Amino acid sequence: MHKKLFIPGPVEVGQDVLNKMATPLIGHRTKDAIALQQSISEKLQKVMRTQNTIILSTSSGSGLMEGAVRCFTKNRAAIFSIGAFGDRWYKMCVANGVEADLFSSELGQITTPEMLESALSTGKYDLITITHNETATGIHNPLKALSEIYKKYPDVIVCVDTVSSMSGDDIPVDELAIDVCITSSQKCLGLPPGLAIAAVSDRAVEKAKTINNRGLYFDYVELVKFVKEKPYQYPSTPSISHMFALDYQLDKILEEGIENRYKRHCMLAQIVRDWATKNCELYSDPENLSVTVTCITNTLGISFSELNKAMGERGYLISNGYGALKDKTFRIAHMADTTEEEIRELLKNLDEVIVELKAAQAK
Amino acid sequence: MHKKLFIPGPVEVGQDVLNKMATPLIGHRTKDAIALQQSISEKLQKVMRTQNTIILSTSSGSGLMEGAVRCFTKNRAAIFSIGAFGDRWYKMCVANGVEADLFSSELGQITTPEMLESALSTGKYDLITITHNETATGIHNPLKALSEIYKKYPDVIVCVDTVSSMSGDDIPVDELAIDVCITSSQKCLGLPPGLAIAAVSDRAVEKAKTINNRGLYFDYVELVKFVKEKPYQYPSTPSISHMFALDYQLDKILEEGIENRYKRHCMLAQIVRDWATKNCELYSDPENLSVTVTCITNTLGISFSELNKAMGERGYLISNGYGALKDKTFRIAHMADTTEEEIRELLKNLDEVIVELKAAQAK
Repeated sequence: MHKKLFIPGPVEVGQDVLNKMATPLIGHRTKDAIALQQSISEKLQKVMRTQNTIILSTSSGSGLMEGAVRCFTKNRAAIFSIGAFGDRWYKMCVANGVEADLFSSELGQITTPEMLESALSTGKYDLITITHNETATGIHNPLKALSEIYKKYPDVIVCVDTVSSMSGDDIPVDELAIDVCITSSQKCLGLPPGLAIAAVSDRAVEKAKTINNRGLYFDYVELVKFVKEKPYQYPSTPSISHMFALDYQLDKILEEGIENRYKRHCMLAQIVRDWATKNCELYSDPENLSVTVTCITNTLGISFSELNKAMGERGYLISNGYGALKDKTFRIAHMADTTEEEIRELLKNLDEVIVELKAAQAK
Repeated sequence: MHKKLFIPGPVEVGQDVLNKMATPLIGHRTKDAIALQQSISEKLQKVMRTQNTIILSTSSGSGLMEGAVRCFTKNRAAIFSIGAFGDRWYKMCVANGVEADLFSSELGQITTPEMLESALSTGKYDLITITHNETATGIHNPLKALSEIYKKYPDVIVCVDTVSSMSGDDIPVDELAIDVCITSSQKCLGLPPGLAIAAVSDRAVEKAKTINNRGLYFDYVELVKFVKEKPYQYPSTPSISHMFALDYQLDKILEEGIENRYKRHCMLAQIVRDWATKNCELYSDPENLSVTVTCITNTLGISFSELNKAMGERGYLISNGYGALKDKTFRIAHMADTTEEEIRELLKNLDEVIVELKAAQAK
């Protein structure tokens, strides 16, 4: 039995989108492939609200995150972490000999404007990375407030991980002056995993050209060159299947509308938060809760593995806590094309399962 | 109209295999995903004839090639190039600060055992890279003869690019003592592009652990750790769709049998070579012709673009020359699941198109 996915990626993907993955292939240097990549780029610029160059990467989002710190750091990177994925960005710096410092917030707390100001005012950093939405704890950083700080430092390249929020949350890339905005197919975009995406500013690319040891596969200079000069090509052989599905899904996203999509995510998040407040506790800073995933402190007196097993038997998959929060919390994702009806159905089943498991315990 | 692909990747993929790309997704940390990766690994060990650890990478083959020179070179790499893809391997060394020397053969010629002996006997190199099959020129290196040389240097890590030959040509990985054997989904394996594969020896991984600056996404130590210790997982979110299709296609490959698959590729190659000899000229060293792609010197008096256009109208795609050979040659791939009937049909159409175009010229 297929389990419907309410985990923070991969998300449940509609069968119509999945079917596009089965499209017969085309040569990746043909006019058809160029037209496909151009179409995707133009639609993604609308979804991401940016004029920056769109690059595709056949990889998970991690690949482009790693490429970003290699390509755009000349002096030193300031890595702001609000959980597992910020920590991973720091690990990437270490693994590539990129000089960096890690600024961690407590789990469940945001990166504050004060933290950013305090680091940037030292003048030591020419690149910052921010995790927009942290699936480990279910919070999102206040990008608008943070942008007011980093905009005061025009020589700093701003990289933002929007892997688990782009096209769900409200992220106007150009308004926020994000130089390198990275996302991935298997979250709010509602596609299978296997493709990463970035919107990259010209000034970032110009800077990268002056930096050595950028590598090749995730070299933004090379990726942008193939988009701008070829044009609309990919340096090696890309996942054409994902491109077919993405092009199709972007039409559906634009048809719903970016603003409507954001509102729907907010509405779904509120339903899950209400459930969590009633039945358990919300794990994170209530002022900055994610609109794409909710992290819930497990106060049910039922272990997650029991809960998960019972939900699995009903055809649903939710997620345990991440890393240090593995046993303390569980997570429900409300991303991509999830409807109000679907999230209510999930929670109804969760209610029933909890009653059953408590009754079994009482025996 | 879909054009049937006779280009050296992506190859034509059967609709049954394509349909597997549309399988509903599963969580990448679930038991089902672990079972899927284990199943793929065990089947790939049979196809690649190796006991080494199988790793999957959501990327093109280039990604794992880049990772290999970063992870396994401690002193200096000797890069043996027989064309575009060997040159790319050298470019990867430069782009990552890996000390390396490039040993190029003339286009259309192999890497000779003498070249290998001469380089390795200096004692300067602790890693070599060999392109097994070069799609730019349609030749394959004599791996057996080369292995007799490098086996004399047990401290050298041997990396072989079999991207365009594995599961088409005869490559018994363990018998050939290949430490890092890299291939890719969209060539002889008969799948869509988007997944790379490597078989990695334990001694290579042990060596990598002593090397810094390996990066993260293509870090073989990390990839192997997730396979061996988790077990059978992937560090980030992999392309689950490709894994479904690969698992299915590997059954078909094993059903045909490795030896039969090799014989079929030899038979198809011979048909195309015979056609080329009759109508044009073979471009490369006749002693070392590839069994997966044939590179043909265009002596037709018809430009490739004319030929390509006319073939396109009939629903076929063949390939122009690569790089410096762009206008001088064209290429016909005979990879993956292509049948004798299909290749004869292609050549029949090519014959007809040539007659038509010559008649038009004569007018």
